[in-house]
Amino acid sequence: MRLAVLGVGLIGGSVGLAARTRAQADVAGWDPDPGVAERALALGAIGAGAEDPAAAVAGADLVVVAAPVGVLPEAVGEALAAAGPETVVTDVGSTKRTVVAAHGGDPRFVGGHPLAGAETAGVEHARADLFEGATWYLTPTERTGGVLYERLHRFLTALGARPYAIDAERHDDVLAAVSHLPHVLANVLVAQAAGTLAREDERIPASGPSFRDATRVAGASTAIWRDIYLSNADALVGRIDEAIMRLSEVRETLAAGDGEAIAAWNDAAAEDRRGLLESGLAGGPVHELRASVPNQPGVVARLALELGRAGVNITDMALYPAADNRTGSVALWIAGDDEAGRAQELIAGLGFAVARA
Amino acid sequence: MRLAVLGVGLIGGSVGLAARTRAQADVAGWDPDPGVAERALALGAIGAGAEDPAAAVAGADLVVVAAPVGVLPEAVGEALAAAGPETVVTDVGSTKRTVVAAHGGDPRFVGGHPLAGAETAGVEHARADLFEGATWYLTPTERTGGVLYERLHRFLTALGARPYAIDAERHDDVLAAVSHLPHVLANVLVAQAAGTLAREDERIPASGPSFRDATRVAGASTAIWRDIYLSNADALVGRIDEAIMRLSEVRETLAAGDGEAIAAWNDAAAEDRRGLLESGLAGGPVHELRASVPNQPGVVARLALELGRAGVNITDMALYPAADNRTGSVALWIAGDDEAGRAQELIAGLGFAVARA
Repeated sequence: MRLAVLGVGLIGGSVGLAARTRAQADVAGWDPDPGVAERALALGAIGAGAEDPAAAVAGADLVVVAAPVGVLPEAVGEALAAAGPETVVTDVGSTKRTVVAAHGGDPRFVGGHPLAGAETAGVEHARADLFEGATWYLTPTERTGGVLYERLHRFLTALGARPYAIDAERHDDVLAAVSHLPHVLANVLVAQAAGTLAREDERIPASGPSFRDATRVAGASTAIWRDIYLSNADALVGRIDEAIMRLSEVRETLAAGDGEAIAAWNDAAAEDRRGLLESGLAGGPVHELRASVPNQPGVVARLALELGRAGVNITDMALYPAADNRTGSVALWIAGDDEAGRAQELIAGLGFAVARA
Repeated sequence: MRLAVLGVGLIGGSVGLAARTRAQADVAGWDPDPGVAERALALGAIGAGAEDPAAAVAGADLVVVAAPVGVLPEAVGEALAAAGPETVVTDVGSTKRTVVAAHGGDPRFVGGHPLAGAETAGVEHARADLFEGATWYLTPTERTGGVLYERLHRFLTALGARPYAIDAERHDDVLAAVSHLPHVLANVLVAQAAGTLAREDERIPASGPSFRDATRVAGASTAIWRDIYLSNADALVGRIDEAIMRLSEVRETLAAGDGEAIAAWNDAAAEDRRGLLESGLAGGPVHELRASVPNQPGVVARLALELGRAGVNITDMALYPAADNRTGSVALWIAGDDEAGRAQELIAGLGFAVARA
């Protein structure tokens, strides 16, 4: 397996490290900053440095473009131009609509986004286990090649990640709620706290654990987040409006001193949190399902998206084309009895024959 | 040293454990739930169980009332009624105005609030190191007895905590910003995420690290937080209004797609966060300051509040009454060269002679 990583900072470097140690991949890397590429090589995050993106991509089975969101359409375009017909190209950008709009028509491109990272940046903080257990969103389209999607899915599970297929539009909407809005609120919190604590020559320690947790992502790298905010501004504005509405409601409840309503509001939040934590979990014995599918573009993407929508994690997958090359079967490994049952129903609902292997 | 703990859940139990293991205290405990008191005894969080609050308080040098905010005025009143004239009584409630308004006139009462806790509750999760390095706010008044305040301060540093004196009004204002508002925002975040993720039979994993951090305190124990919200509703409403204003501003910036303004806003948040983290730190060599003070009620509280306002942490303190019992000196140990210099200036500014020992 030959991997090319374009951009070898924290995420690209961690992909390289994990690919080399966990997937025995040959990793060629390139970075716009030659010093970064050198450090990545010295740290073992890449096995070889390349002169330019095209040289890194040449002969690769899989290309990971780890560039800032603002330059992604161009950077992915370059990678696709240099890649062969059997190469899958993905990215790790935090918003997906723009890059998928630009390249979703190319069967070789699958948008990606790992929910991993750190307060830190830079290849110096790259870790082979950064993606262990992390949700890794993939945004295939109806044009996506099934074989290429399967290769990417397998690669990500080898890194320890849990790939979930999701529509690009939906991805950006979800991320506005679970990532971009939390970042906005963290910024608001530190601005208010700084205003409160620093007044009149006072310097009050604000180091309670809940405050530190709530503001860990405040003022995250502007180089990265400026583009994320801009590229998802419309979805984020909707979420901010919703947050303002919710805050106005609880403000009225507090102003009225309505203890019962406050208790009910807080209980509902506890319930919501429990539900969200559970939806992030999967487990139990792994079942293998076999689905018979036509050998058409987009079939694997449809399957993956359908299960992703239902929160069913595909632990592993494999494609078996039939001899006639017009049909084939997809093997899916699903953890958990309930999840496997749900997956079976969903696949049957798509009109494909499916059975437990 | 004899300690009484009234209410032996997570916080009270951890006070007991830490007092027994780190301050060699005899700890008597009482809890409204006899089963909780039994478990605290079995876990070693208290050395003896008491029949009722008065029995626990009898003969104690120090009483910690760890009751929910809603019943604090009554519970502290009971403790003060049972306590001797030389006993210091404190509490651990998350808001301070109500209980200080009720008992701030008693020289034996000092309001307290450790910035520690956990997602968990219950004596089963009590830990002797829960307060290690934690800010512990104290709200002395001009009536507070100096000897009693010193005893409490020493006790808390023995637990590993860092006591900061602060005015009760200011405490509640600060906590609205650094604790109560973060809790409100966490509740808003999980409510929105649940609404977004759960629609149309979808179950999308929201388990990114930034979301988990931002919502760790969502739906915190209603039994505790209902009272906190109610007792600090006016301050919190002000903070919510401010948050809504800030959110409206960033919303407009996003809607306008103004990249420069977004970058400036995010950079400012990074700067605020850095400043807040630094204000929570102290360090360097410890200096001893000696201040000559009149032997009057409230003098020690004034000193502590003045240094607390400036963010100067008093690592340790000791009182030395003079033979005439009309004057005396206070020794203060301050970590850090700058902090010690600032403390010296501030004490001199109060009109007291002060020198490095």
